[in-house]
Amino acid sequence: MHPRFYDFEATFKATTQRGSNMSTSYSSCYHSTTLSTHSLLLSHPKASAFHPSRFPNPSFKFHSTNQIPQTHLRIMSQKPSQVLGGKVEVGETQEGVSKGPMIDFHGIDEGLVEKMVYDALVWSSLHGLLVGDKSVQRSGKVPGVGMVHAPFALFPMLFPECHWKQAYELAPIFNELVDRVSLDAKFLQDSLSRTKKVDAFTSRLLDIHSKMLEINKKEDIRLGLHRSDYMLDEETKQLLQIEMNTISASFPGLGCLVSDLHRSLLNHYGESLGLDSKRVPNNPAATKFVEALAKAWSEYNNPRAVILLVVQPEERNMYDQHWLSALLKERHNVSTLRRTLAEIDAEGKLQPDGTLVVGGHEVAIVYFRVGYAPINYPSESEWRARLLMEQSSAIKCPSISYHLVGTKKIQQELAKPNVLERFLDDKEDIAKLRKCFAGLWSLDDSDIVKKAIESPGLFVMKPQREGGGNNIYGNDVREALTRLQKEGSEADAAYILMQRIFPTASHTFLMREGVCYKDDTISELGVYGAYLRNKDKVILNDQCGYLMRTKISSSDEGGVAAGFAVLDSLYLT
Amino acid sequence: MHPRFYDFEATFKATTQRGSNMSTSYSSCYHSTTLSTHSLLLSHPKASAFHPSRFPNPSFKFHSTNQIPQTHLRIMSQKPSQVLGGKVEVGETQEGVSKGPMIDFHGIDEGLVEKMVYDALVWSSLHGLLVGDKSVQRSGKVPGVGMVHAPFALFPMLFPECHWKQAYELAPIFNELVDRVSLDAKFLQDSLSRTKKVDAFTSRLLDIHSKMLEINKKEDIRLGLHRSDYMLDEETKQLLQIEMNTISASFPGLGCLVSDLHRSLLNHYGESLGLDSKRVPNNPAATKFVEALAKAWSEYNNPRAVILLVVQPEERNMYDQHWLSALLKERHNVSTLRRTLAEIDAEGKLQPDGTLVVGGHEVAIVYFRVGYAPINYPSESEWRARLLMEQSSAIKCPSISYHLVGTKKIQQELAKPNVLERFLDDKEDIAKLRKCFAGLWSLDDSDIVKKAIESPGLFVMKPQREGGGNNIYGNDVREALTRLQKEGSEADAAYILMQRIFPTASHTFLMREGVCYKDDTISELGVYGAYLRNKDKVILNDQCGYLMRTKISSSDEGGVAAGFAVLDSLYLT
Repeated sequence: MHPRFYDFEATFKATTQRGSNMSTSYSSCYHSTTLSTHSLLLSHPKASAFHPSRFPNPSFKFHSTNQIPQTHLRIMSQKPSQVLGGKVEVGETQEGVSKGPMIDFHGIDEGLVEKMVYDALVWSSLHGLLVGDKSVQRSGKVPGVGMVHAPFALFPMLFPECHWKQAYELAPIFNELVDRVSLDAKFLQDSLSRTKKVDAFTSRLLDIHSKMLEINKKEDIRLGLHRSDYMLDEETKQLLQIEMNTISASFPGLGCLVSDLHRSLLNHYGESLGLDSKRVPNNPAATKFVEALAKAWSEYNNPRAVILLVVQPEERNMYDQHWLSALLKERHNVSTLRRTLAEIDAEGKLQPDGTLVVGGHEVAIVYFRVGYAPINYPSESEWRARLLMEQSSAIKCPSISYHLVGTKKIQQELAKPNVLERFLDDKEDIAKLRKCFAGLWSLDDSDIVKKAIESPGLFVMKPQREGGGNNIYGNDVREALTRLQKEGSEADAAYILMQRIFPTASHTFLMREGVCYKDDTISELGVYGAYLRNKDKVILNDQCGYLMRTKISSSDEGGVAAGFAVLDSLYLT
Repeated sequence: MHPRFYDFEATFKATTQRGSNMSTSYSSCYHSTTLSTHSLLLSHPKASAFHPSRFPNPSFKFHSTNQIPQTHLRIMSQKPSQVLGGKVEVGETQEGVSKGPMIDFHGIDEGLVEKMVYDALVWSSLHGLLVGDKSVQRSGKVPGVGMVHAPFALFPMLFPECHWKQAYELAPIFNELVDRVSLDAKFLQDSLSRTKKVDAFTSRLLDIHSKMLEINKKEDIRLGLHRSDYMLDEETKQLLQIEMNTISASFPGLGCLVSDLHRSLLNHYGESLGLDSKRVPNNPAATKFVEALAKAWSEYNNPRAVILLVVQPEERNMYDQHWLSALLKERHNVSTLRRTLAEIDAEGKLQPDGTLVVGGHEVAIVYFRVGYAPINYPSESEWRARLLMEQSSAIKCPSISYHLVGTKKIQQELAKPNVLERFLDDKEDIAKLRKCFAGLWSLDDSDIVKKAIESPGLFVMKPQREGGGNNIYGNDVREALTRLQKEGSEADAAYILMQRIFPTASHTFLMREGVCYKDDTISELGVYGAYLRNKDKVILNDQCGYLMRTKISSSDEGGVAAGFAVLDSLYLT
């Protein structure tokens, strides 16, 4: 199992920009201790999220009821605090260590939360908001067994409507940018030339890219299913891009269900909470991705061809993918074929005209839900499969060039002055993109390396390696940079430096494995985008809904055990 | 966990009328060896279910494809036979004993079955066709954890449309009969007087009934949510009633999903199979039960009152119940409260006017999903709760008198000559009911006991005890009757004798825990009915969809390990 798909600790792989140990040291520069503004449910004694300025009806006139069996649900806080009632069982934390009885409900009716927890768990089960349970052996291979609800936040996260709209507006511009950059093979090869020397994975991708250039491979139909991830910087109130995912963007299938879940909860409990379910925006991620896939499939123009879903051998996030396959079948009568890279290597064939045939089926689209990280290529077999598919006339989602555009190095290169202008014409579009760029630097910029050694808390070091869990924060930044300087090798080309973003922390209820946890969290907004072009004709270029992920904020990305992330939705303010 | 709700071996508690060891001995009387007529998918060499007379398109022109990872699915036959392909893993049988590689597909494309198996498992997961996995500790207590697809048949079961319509037509007549009989307290007490002496459980129920008579308890609003179960006798081609469930009729929530699943599968694969998804009748069980509950709740006429779902402490069939609660909330804005009998004993209060209050909520309806078997009353606490609720002015579903009408002894009494006439006026209705009655006898009928000792294979001995797993078949009937005769006590009053029904056996694919089994099966059709009356006004008297259960036919009911049952739907012929 690779972390990107199911391990929420690691899937929340973007720069989680505030570690609890850091926030104190650097709070003079970056206001990271204000805990109130984005919290929907806040029991922190310093602040109340239900401030009248945020909610029309801040009163808590709950019925003091408890509609659930009292001994079955566990609600826990990450922080030890007093037990307020006898109804809460002691559970294990995500680290597997019991921290004793902990519950901390200030201002919100405990019975109401318990009812919502129960209803939310039921809703998830009945509506397919599921993942495989890693404690059940077959849960990553066989559907229908070893299922558990996907981790989710009990309440939607407050988010300013203007920033949400801004992120939506950016989606088609980024879609176009990816397409334009992908056409500039020299830019890609040159930008990644130093990375290639020190990063074997990028090197292999570039090799495939080079081979396609050599054979002058044409890609008439170009399909991009992207997700651009953002955080809201607390001090500047700016929406800043974390990264652009051009391959295997996950959770279009499950993320939209969380919006439905939150609307359902607010329909029933919103009045008591003073919250309006209409403020949770509809999230069409699954249907829009499926529409894009179906449109691309139509462009391929063979009603017997299938969509090949390239998957991991074990995939506990399979239901996220099954939602897309099910919708493709039900609404568009398009069949999907699930295969691992190794299976494609064994079964796949290219016909003389370039047609890709797998398992006896002509493949219209290769839709990658794996293949973005070195761990996905344990042997030459997987690389052979990747090359085979790239050589074919199937539509690749993504093509090797789209994949390369999504690397961190290219992200950093695009942030350099006058680079966007090479690819886009519209000055307004360029300004919009630039506005969401965080500071991004190469390690051959000695001034910035000096600054980062002086103030490592203001930077994140990001390696090319994908999949999360690889970023370097805090004093580790200083150590890593100092070591690289001493070594004087090219190894620094494997990293970029990024401005550290300090998003607002909130108190949140997080649901995992049937247990409700309460802790400080930060959130990251992803906006899906779909782009489809056939030769000169742009058929589709649109936003496709959103993904909100909320994560315990005391954990840097590096520590898998330090916290966990859940699926979330937005409450527009 | 009580077997009635989740253990499909035992929930299939009706007289499963044909044991493999019996069928040979008595085939001269009861044709039990014909394996073809009701089988949809039949690999038995003697017959083909896809006979032109049954299916418009019997040809098997499948694409020889395999759209699923090859090593993940297990398809097994209960009978050892040759492996036809290398794609099928060996798994354990339901007895936990591996029978080695077994697969037996005659005539049907293996790849097609594998695709359908995979799609069906995905469909179940995404659409809430779930139960708790008994191997996961919290799965009976906390929703959203330890889930596994409910056991289901891969294909709908062939069933004659005329018999399906007959069963639907009987539902409102049985509803009325139950109501009428429930009004005749003397008939109930007299009929059960001998049973009372030897069956402690029936005795306790009768005590509550007597107390209600003493206090002259009025039940103005009467709600019945019943299920009448039938089997189709192979020789006589008659639809014969197995029993009438007037309490805790299970699977209205999940059963209807199986019809949706089968229609979805036939929409995609029906053409290859020569099957038309329109022949699977729509099954409105969940929505109709929910409508009946909502109508009764309206009659109670307090918008703040809730429906109390009386449940087991551990309930792995909770999703069947959650579907009803979710629909009540979503469609009718009616809240439900889940409580065990012990919790009701602890929390429940009667106000001076008879209002039942549990957990601070006024209860409009007590809807029992437990309470039908001795095991549900492990202490006096549970009996106190039952009495408390019966004394209240809440609507009971069912009341103690409705519950008693559903006993096997009353079923047998109603089958006596001239008894139906005491309760119903319409001669046609009476004739319709009588037509579906199997032979039913008291053990004080010495002629029939003599016959049963001579030919035990033609009879089933049924104890009053509910919950399945208690019936006596075959030579055990002879032994039991002989022993009872010798003892000469009143113990025989704990049993009735019933004609043994021999339904047609079919080859079927059964899905359990992600594994596909193939075996001979028999099926039982249940038809739900709802009855609602407020004083003289009959508000509702209707059929409410169906439940088809299919069970491995080599098992008598007595042997829990001998076979298992799955949820199924109908394919009308």
